[in-house]
Amino acid sequence: MRKEKVSTAVIRRLPRYYRNLEELSRAGVVRISSGALSAAMGITASQIRQDLSCFGEFGLQGYGYNVENLRREIGEILGVGQGHRAILLGAGNLGRALMENFHFERTGFTLTAAFDVDPAVIGKTLAGVPVLDLKELEGYLEREGADVAVLTVPGGVAQAVTDRLTQCGVRGLWNFTNMELSTPKSTVVENVHFADSLLTLGYMILENKE
Amino acid sequence: MRKEKVSTAVIRRLPRYYRNLEELSRAGVVRISSGALSAAMGITASQIRQDLSCFGEFGLQGYGYNVENLRREIGEILGVGQGHRAILLGAGNLGRALMENFHFERTGFTLTAAFDVDPAVIGKTLAGVPVLDLKELEGYLEREGADVAVLTVPGGVAQAVTDRLTQCGVRGLWNFTNMELSTPKSTVVENVHFADSLLTLGYMILENKE
Repeated sequence: MRKEKVSTAVIRRLPRYYRNLEELSRAGVVRISSGALSAAMGITASQIRQDLSCFGEFGLQGYGYNVENLRREIGEILGVGQGHRAILLGAGNLGRALMENFHFERTGFTLTAAFDVDPAVIGKTLAGVPVLDLKELEGYLEREGADVAVLTVPGGVAQAVTDRLTQCGVRGLWNFTNMELSTPKSTVVENVHFADSLLTLGYMILENKE
Repeated sequence: MRKEKVSTAVIRRLPRYYRNLEELSRAGVVRISSGALSAAMGITASQIRQDLSCFGEFGLQGYGYNVENLRREIGEILGVGQGHRAILLGAGNLGRALMENFHFERTGFTLTAAFDVDPAVIGKTLAGVPVLDLKELEGYLEREGADVAVLTVPGGVAQAVTDRLTQCGVRGLWNFTNMELSTPKSTVVENVHFADSLLTLGYMILENKE
């Protein structure tokens, strides 16, 4: 299957399919019907059949989907096997929570180093990842490189850190600060804006009452 | 302005406008042109003018937008003034990061209590919020009530905790676990799926290279 044939709307849902197939695969599920996948994911079976229709050979009538094959195909489109290298900026509460609890490797990323300005944390190893002095950022990137930087720094320094990262060739930013970042076209930004998410939830609660 | 007149697509962007206007308001900005708002938000000025066209009286030609009035109007649509009460389940790294760093009150929520099963944290007060024994959940909700629950528990117990919450009348779940939750129609769920977000970033990097 070639990704040129997949619509943007489907692409946007692929990470969710990938995550659920990954869970199913690790649980030892070999094949699954669209009905069972629907129950597991909370998406209607007809939407699933439509989304995955281009993955025809894995969704034969009466057979269902081969979990591992489908996971691998979708992973390929998403670039999970690209061996992306990530660094993390800001080893505070949120940074540590990600380092200690988030499975970077399951999404195809390797977290190689973290950076901070606090002498109390510099030099430590958290969840197997060394915490370096932010002063060493440029030197480290020149030596080791990184595709993605996870931004868990305070909002006030987010843009300054972003500028240093993009100048060193980092092409992707996973932005957990509540700031809008300005970047060159060669760098993409994925925002995790907690405030927007909670505001949306508040709105949905109001709507759901009416 | 009545929200019936606002399209769903605009509604989806309102949290982002609200967050940026809130920042501008706190920074003392009284009024702002669509061009300057565009630069601050990274949205084109024409998109902003179109999105906010129904807020006509605040965007007079040559005057720009009155920041505080626009913030208040959008906040009203989003329900920021509803006095939502929130509790948090799971005071681990991520739970603590939210308690200590996320400004619930800026989105109109008050975090009243956290719950955990770990004796080492039960009874403590984190960022002014008491951490209670998860056993006390039902009793607390009966006495105090809560509109929203923040789920930062391990994935394996997410559905069980969800069932207890919805049975006690919690109408909104802010879900940070990597699980898909099953809930009655009276409860809405807003997911923060870190894995989906990072997978999307990985995909965007690939696309951006081509």
